[in-house]
Amino acid sequence: MKTDIEMMRHSCAHLVAAAVAELYPKAKFGVGPTVENGFYYDIDFGTSINEEDLQKIEDKAKEMQKQKVEFSRQEVSLDKAIGLFEKNDQVYKVELLKDLKTKGTTKVNDEELAEIGENIDKVSLYKTGEFIDLCRGPHVKDSSEIGVFKLTKLAGAYWRGKSENPQLTRVYGVCFAKQKELDDYLTLLEEAEKRDHRKLGKELDLYHIDDMVGLGLPLWHPKGAIMWRVIEDFWYKYHLLGGYELVRTPHIGNKALWETSGHWGFYNDSMYPPLEVGQTLKESQTNQEVKEPETYLLKPMNCPFHVQIFKNRPYSYRELPLRWAECGTVYRHEKKGQLSGLTRVRGFTQDDAHIICAKEQVEDELKRVIDFILFIYKSFGFNIDDVQVFLSLRDPKDKEKYVGSDEGWELTESVLRKVAIDKKLNFKEEEGEAAFYGPKLDFKIKDCLGRLWQCSTLQFDFNLPERFDLNFVNNKGEQERPYMLHRALFGSFERFIGLLIEHYAGAFPVWFAPTQIMLVPVSEKHVEGARKIREELFELGLRVDSDEADETLGNKVRKAAKQKIPYIIVVGDKELAGEDWMIRIRGVEKQEKMSKEKFIEKILKEVKERV
Amino acid sequence: MKTDIEMMRHSCAHLVAAAVAELYPKAKFGVGPTVENGFYYDIDFGTSINEEDLQKIEDKAKEMQKQKVEFSRQEVSLDKAIGLFEKNDQVYKVELLKDLKTKGTTKVNDEELAEIGENIDKVSLYKTGEFIDLCRGPHVKDSSEIGVFKLTKLAGAYWRGKSENPQLTRVYGVCFAKQKELDDYLTLLEEAEKRDHRKLGKELDLYHIDDMVGLGLPLWHPKGAIMWRVIEDFWYKYHLLGGYELVRTPHIGNKALWETSGHWGFYNDSMYPPLEVGQTLKESQTNQEVKEPETYLLKPMNCPFHVQIFKNRPYSYRELPLRWAECGTVYRHEKKGQLSGLTRVRGFTQDDAHIICAKEQVEDELKRVIDFILFIYKSFGFNIDDVQVFLSLRDPKDKEKYVGSDEGWELTESVLRKVAIDKKLNFKEEEGEAAFYGPKLDFKIKDCLGRLWQCSTLQFDFNLPERFDLNFVNNKGEQERPYMLHRALFGSFERFIGLLIEHYAGAFPVWFAPTQIMLVPVSEKHVEGARKIREELFELGLRVDSDEADETLGNKVRKAAKQKIPYIIVVGDKELAGEDWMIRIRGVEKQEKMSKEKFIEKILKEVKERV
Repeated sequence: MKTDIEMMRHSCAHLVAAAVAELYPKAKFGVGPTVENGFYYDIDFGTSINEEDLQKIEDKAKEMQKQKVEFSRQEVSLDKAIGLFEKNDQVYKVELLKDLKTKGTTKVNDEELAEIGENIDKVSLYKTGEFIDLCRGPHVKDSSEIGVFKLTKLAGAYWRGKSENPQLTRVYGVCFAKQKELDDYLTLLEEAEKRDHRKLGKELDLYHIDDMVGLGLPLWHPKGAIMWRVIEDFWYKYHLLGGYELVRTPHIGNKALWETSGHWGFYNDSMYPPLEVGQTLKESQTNQEVKEPETYLLKPMNCPFHVQIFKNRPYSYRELPLRWAECGTVYRHEKKGQLSGLTRVRGFTQDDAHIICAKEQVEDELKRVIDFILFIYKSFGFNIDDVQVFLSLRDPKDKEKYVGSDEGWELTESVLRKVAIDKKLNFKEEEGEAAFYGPKLDFKIKDCLGRLWQCSTLQFDFNLPERFDLNFVNNKGEQERPYMLHRALFGSFERFIGLLIEHYAGAFPVWFAPTQIMLVPVSEKHVEGARKIREELFELGLRVDSDEADETLGNKVRKAAKQKIPYIIVVGDKELAGEDWMIRIRGVEKQEKMSKEKFIEKILKEVKERV
Repeated sequence: MKTDIEMMRHSCAHLVAAAVAELYPKAKFGVGPTVENGFYYDIDFGTSINEEDLQKIEDKAKEMQKQKVEFSRQEVSLDKAIGLFEKNDQVYKVELLKDLKTKGTTKVNDEELAEIGENIDKVSLYKTGEFIDLCRGPHVKDSSEIGVFKLTKLAGAYWRGKSENPQLTRVYGVCFAKQKELDDYLTLLEEAEKRDHRKLGKELDLYHIDDMVGLGLPLWHPKGAIMWRVIEDFWYKYHLLGGYELVRTPHIGNKALWETSGHWGFYNDSMYPPLEVGQTLKESQTNQEVKEPETYLLKPMNCPFHVQIFKNRPYSYRELPLRWAECGTVYRHEKKGQLSGLTRVRGFTQDDAHIICAKEQVEDELKRVIDFILFIYKSFGFNIDDVQVFLSLRDPKDKEKYVGSDEGWELTESVLRKVAIDKKLNFKEEEGEAAFYGPKLDFKIKDCLGRLWQCSTLQFDFNLPERFDLNFVNNKGEQERPYMLHRALFGSFERFIGLLIEHYAGAFPVWFAPTQIMLVPVSEKHVEGARKIREELFELGLRVDSDEADETLGNKVRKAAKQKIPYIIVVGDKELAGEDWMIRIRGVEKQEKMSKEKFIEKILKEVKERV
């Protein structure tokens, strides 16, 4: 069932199509489904369309809206519909109808299906003014019920998503019930665009994704890589303080490992294809036979490797809990269309850890992880009252998708629920969202625009210890099966840094800003002095740069401000003579006068206190 | 031509074979080439052989040696030789001779060839006492010239290295001109065995290599991983201080990248096979066509990625030199038989950096890297006077193996030579050892047993900038091609840590020892107090553990000593009451009495000064 707002948006798509039909009588229409906040319509205009034309279409649609155009429904046989659209030369609609007739619904994709329905006897037509569309409906009664809308952009889209088909023009629009909602949304859009990490990533020279290298595989530039390292250092420090140990594992592993873990069975859609080593390998230099039909996989997660470390020697209950942390880079073959900047990539570094513990330690360990997660959010300036937690459970109606016994699921789910309640988390339960090996708590944080970002995950796993036959020696000298917690705090470095870029709009807190101080020598003769100051500050562990470019002072200051560097310090005769410095503080209009010593004290304090 | 010692060793192999022939008249002989320090002989004894038998064979050979057995040479036709060995039922020799006759030398491997020669008309036979062997020679005149020898071990070896062939017994021996040389060698062997990083890696719980995960892919346990991290921190610190910036790149990349770089053409024997993404991938959820016949490769080196970062925006001469460092994990498919512990692996982390600079900056940058290399060696306790350097040049007779112009090679080779001379390096030139894209300086360091380990490399590359069309804007506003230096200081973390384990026999200097202090609570009631001390020391950045196992004090102290932990401190009533501590210092017999404050001061100083 469509909600009111969806019906409104879908009707708006028809209205816009009707406007196009008036302005471009030869236009041929593809499909026009709703999307988040609005809709699109794929149209073959027979001519190229620009922003100006888009405005005219919007104007026309608004004019029609005022006329209270009715949406009238009519049911006709498939053949009659085909005849009607053939007469109007609507080749795309005809193709859809013919496909529906001859091949059933299988040849029709989800978006198309939502439009045309799956009844092969009869289809419904909607008439909006003079414009008739094939549509499943339902629609509003007349255009006065549509609310407010705006056409936002044009894009190219192949008919039915196939590149050998004609390219249509996709007209995007947003539609809301009230003007204020639309205004708020447009403001948010504008603000979000300014903060877009893909745009800022380029402007601040943090990273890029390179066609020559591959999709979803970011290359980190010096400014991005140093920020990563600062964040990683922080992460390691608090993991070691929190009783974690480090481990380190390779990026490929034998396929058998993933078969045992169950990933190959449950997860291989998201994995890169196997590396068949024995078959391709040339061992040309010797006559030795190659006995090595090995099959490796790029790791999509780190767990089986950590498990193999545990299996390497016997462990006593006295050594538990083991908390093994690794910032491990994993590879998952996400679909091309779903890739986006740093938030959806194919190669990413999980800030992973596995906790192997006895049953009676589980609850305590889960709580410790939750505290750790919240500490991390606070450290990066997020409001922990805004954190939303999802308790992801098994879908009890689709047990095929999961491994393990019912009792195991009941136990782990109820412990996670208890812990979430005890820790007073603001949580919702979601059936069907568990990992195939166990339930989990997923944490989402809100950025400054109120958008939610998937971040930490905490998973309670009773299956991998079973599948890998893990044991420790308990205090009775018997073999006992441990439990395993999987957790990532950032989720991934890539995604978390993407979030930080957008949350701070690139104006990072001093403690992890890639460059903390930019020195701007007034002229060539102050370059040497600035270098000395740079070295002095550098020795204190500060990240400081000096702009020696042959440009005007104003230009260099503007450049540094555009880079959102927290402190900009002009270095001239006075500064080198030991007088007070004039400090340009990011976000503060007036320069601040301060002695060198005072400034150093101030910035070191900020770094220490992580502001 | 064989050297005297090689001739001696090869003759010794014959002598041993002659002894076997006397003791085991039915023995059938394979081949018996020389190897480093000695020789082996593959023999089908027709029965199983143990260490005791080996001693008997050695005794017999020594007895024969005393009899001054002559080595007499005889040339015979191939057919006559075949007849002779057929008569003696020496099936392996017959097979070799028949192969030589019918298929020429192509079917014979290097070791076999060295034995039998490649003359298909005539072969030479050597008679040692009653034993006749097919052999190219030359040999000593009689057994008195053989020097001293010892049979060291038995191993299994498939005939001609193929597993479908019979397994022979390989008898290993060492042989030297003088008794003292043999004694020294055996002592060295014994010492090396104690220090073997594969053995210590297990005893100290640093890492393991797991059949289930894959060959040559180490898994780092907590103690190994923390040591790695400490070393990595040191590495990053001094790179940043030295004007390097960090970058970070993925582990896979488009094949096209490696085609451009030339690696695919010159290096693909050592690369893992391509990951063909488009063909295997299921995009089951949509009907969208998968337009993605992408081919990825696991990276065997980092350079093309760093190059792509450079190409992402224009650079001015004012920004040069760029020094981009990355501890990048690369994958090379080394042959199974060549894999060994941490020193020869398939996945390893290069402590890599690329310096992109203008021509006039090259010399200075090369010298800076050399200084950096020597600083690193000193920091880890190696004697830099022992460093041996190899200037690896192109093989001027085999230019096919390299890319680039003659002028380019002449320039880069002469600059490297000049720099090596200016820096007063102890270097040798080696033709044919250059990388395919340029000449290099390879640095080897001596461990405490006098063994040389390949470590740093410094490569001067004029080809990749050409192949990837790199440019910067020079001070005239024109496009100019930069040069590129590739360098790794450790070589790889794996190999370098392997070296450190053997050099220090696992008794690592305090600054990078995985555990610096082991607290040993006397009894259950001191456990809590020990924990408090542990936390206090931990907060100071020290790596400290407390052994809470329910074992005797003596046992726990012995365990910690076996772990080669620098400081062991027993925690009992007195220690908890604030009295002086009794410190067991590694390698010092007598315990040292010291106040807690004094001890903390001492150890922090040691960490800071890296001892």
